Amino acid sequence: MIIKKEIRIIGFDDGPFVKGSKGKVPVIGSIFRGGLFLDGLIRLDIDIDGTDATEKIINALEKTRHEDIRIVMLDGITFGGFNIVNIEKLYKETKLPVIVITRKKTDMKKFKQAMKKLENFEEREKCIKNAGDFYEFKSKRRGKSIYFQKIGLSEENVREIINISSTRSLIPEPVRVSHIIASGIVKGESIGRP
Amino acid sequence: MIIKKEIRIIGFDDGPFVKGSKGKVPVIGSIFRGGLFLDGLIRLDIDIDGTDATEKIINALEKTRHEDIRIVMLDGITFGGFNIVNIEKLYKETKLPVIVITRKKTDMKKFKQAMKKLENFEEREKCIKNAGDFYEFKSKRRGKSIYFQKIGLSEENVREIINISSTRSLIPEPVRVSHIIASGIVKGESIGRP
Repeated sequence: MIIKKEIRIIGFDDGPFVKGSKGKVPVIGSIFRGGLFLDGLIRLDIDIDGTDATEKIINALEKTRHEDIRIVMLDGITFGGFNIVNIEKLYKETKLPVIVITRKKTDMKKFKQAMKKLENFEEREKCIKNAGDFYEFKSKRRGKSIYFQKIGLSEENVREIINISSTRSLIPEPVRVSHIIASGIVKGESIGRP
Repeated sequence: MIIKKEIRIIGFDDGPFVKGSKGKVPVIGSIFRGGLFLDGLIRLDIDIDGTDATEKIINALEKTRHEDIRIVMLDGITFGGFNIVNIEKLYKETKLPVIVITRKKTDMKKFKQAMKKLENFEEREKCIKNAGDFYEFKSKRRGKSIYFQKIGLSEENVREIINISSTRSLIPEPVRVSHIIASGIVKGESIGRP
């Protein structure tokens, strides 16, 4: 796979919310040219602790007028609390490779424990399993690591895409910028992240 | 005035709304390092055809945790229809120079005619007068023009700032990106602008 410097990536992150509350939380998808600049934006709303994140993201990607999106990035697989994205389903239905970015390897035991009190435990657990192993990505420029999970791409290609798109921080721009926007529109002002 | 390539600029634009309707419209302020990358975001909500835009923007700039903002850019002086920003007041109270970016010189006669049916006509008219003359900015790279109004900066400095910050299109990044975000969060998907 040849990866162009301006490869179009959409990176999703959710807004902040009160844990355990009911209601919806906005999810922002920033369409970026590699790690260079913002080309477009998608906004959707999902249920806090619900099960609609996967479907809503698939729908948004199917109906968008923005063309040539090649890669989907997610800031973790959990949105709006325990509303977990099934990246296998997301990949199968959109044919777009998915890269999940996390700052730390999630402690899955602890996470599953907290999830047990919710409905559809098996479905949620399946999403976690589907997301697969964590890989470490050590930034040469910054001497620090992030972690990723992935589907639809070789490990080598993912490393190249993260390298191309993390122009301003450890976190790839499409995800970093979605975090700023999602937190900013909910709180009135974005919450900092290096 | 020495203008650094990474000078912090906040660019404001409003979201789309139905003309003549009542209610509020979001205004997004993107905090940019020159024309390079997004550093933070402010969101506020103003009344459609109201008179609170100036005050809300001043408040947001006074209470923001984002430091070192040096320049305010506006996508035109009218937000949420006829909710007009008084750039003289904005400059006096925040001590930040203001640059108003427009694609075309506004037809002021037509505009004032439409505004006459609203309350506070004199106040709104004063804001238009305060914004001052239109200057043409011809982009060397793109061979096309935009227009600006300004307060608190020399014409030469404004030209340099527009030049530095319009890295991706005719429109400076802080304003271009706020347009994408404001339209995207209201409509579910951003509305294109070259």
